[in-house]
Amino acid sequence: MYRKEIQVTSEREGDIIDLTLEVRKTVKESRVKDGFIHLFVQHSTAALTTIEYEPGVVSDMQRVLSVIAPDNIPYAHNTRWGDGNGRSHVKAAFIGPSLTIPVAHGELMSGTWQQIVLLELDVNAGRTQTIICSVTGE
Amino acid sequence: MYRKEIQVTSEREGDIIDLTLEVRKTVKESRVKDGFIHLFVQHSTAALTTIEYEPGVVSDMQRVLSVIAPDNIPYAHNTRWGDGNGRSHVKAAFIGPSLTIPVAHGELMSGTWQQIVLLELDVNAGRTQTIICSVTGE
Amino acid sequence: MYRKEIQVTSEREGDIIDLTLEVRKTVKESRVKDGFIHLFVQHSTAALTTIEYEPGVVSDMQRVLSVIAPDNIPYAHNTRWGDGNGRSHVKAAFIGPSLTIPVAHGELMSGTWQQIVLLELDVNAGRTQTIICSVTGE
Repeated sequence: MYRKEIQVTSEREGDIIDLTLEVRKTVKESRVKDGFIHLFVQHSTAALTTIEYEPGVVSDMQRVLSVIAPDNIPYAHNTRWGDGNGRSHVKAAFIGPSLTIPVAHGELMSGTWQQIVLLELDVNAGRTQTIICSVTGE
Repeated sequence: MYRKEIQVTSEREGDIIDLTLEVRKTVKESRVKDGFIHLFVQHSTAALTTIEYEPGVVSDMQRVLSVIAPDNIPYAHNTRWGDGNGRSHVKAAFIGPSLTIPVAHGELMSGTWQQIVLLELDVNAGRTQTIICSVTGE
Repeated sequence: MYRKEIQVTSEREGDIIDLTLEVRKTVKESRVKDGFIHLFVQHSTAALTTIEYEPGVVSDMQRVLSVIAPDNIPYAHNTRWGDGNGRSHVKAAFIGPSLTIPVAHGELMSGTWQQIVLLELDVNAGRTQTIICSVTGE
């Protein structure tokens, strides 16, 4: 197993950051030809998924996340802790913190229009997020 | 590791296709007794999850997906690319492209009423979807 | 591979049960130092994810699940089977049944405020849920 941490710094709530190049580079470094790469984001207000990474989908995704957890309603988390990121927690729990992608011939097997992304869901911008990458196989 | 591609052809947007028999067959072919099967759909407008596969749940699931991404609102993706599947992209990113199920004694460990399904979320019907199946273990 | 079943009994619909201590204990028992723990819930009306486990987030999460699948609307599943848990099925399919967390130095690599939780989504309270835990690595 080859393990590495990727760190990315977001600028604002709702940022969707394309990790595909970094993930591809990690697969190369691992020298694994056939197996998997597993990704895990170590924060409860960020999430991982795949999207077609173009500004339209990024914008649509941000809006849909606000459908399930609007900005302008009260959150019990905010009332208790006063930190304003109640909506961030629920969005992250919906999308989830982990993702596993098959690797063949030393390459990611994800589709051409299927990029690997981090969703920065926290209201506190500018945080550095850690994503643990683990490559297994032969 | 045993790896195989399953291909399924959808008929229309919202199709939910039961993959359980094909997945079970793949586990048998692999001769793996104890381990995992990992599934990954190689398209950004389809997704994988588990449901009780009966027409009621299938219908309810389709409606709930329309709650988060309604048909009749504008999508930035559509405006940019004119292909009409903005809602498909966001639904797929919510559910996710991958799934891992434990295998014991050469059988899937999923529950009796827990089928493995592909969600065809694209507005362009009749596409063939590729699902990469990877069985690992002993 | 070390495999074990964790069983938890819910009290009511919407219960969110913190599994982190049990999962950590399972990692210890496995004696795996570097690898993964994979969790899978064997029921179609329960789901697994990670949240900051504090009463505010738990309460917010329950409300958000009701946004996508309200209590007071008809479900095709209920009409067909009369068991009243149509909303439970769709919520579970959204969140998903499985989760993989990296393990290093014999410890979970999840974040400090990132607990592993079971969501009891069924309307029938008091059920015992089985979660299959599989630890792989060295």
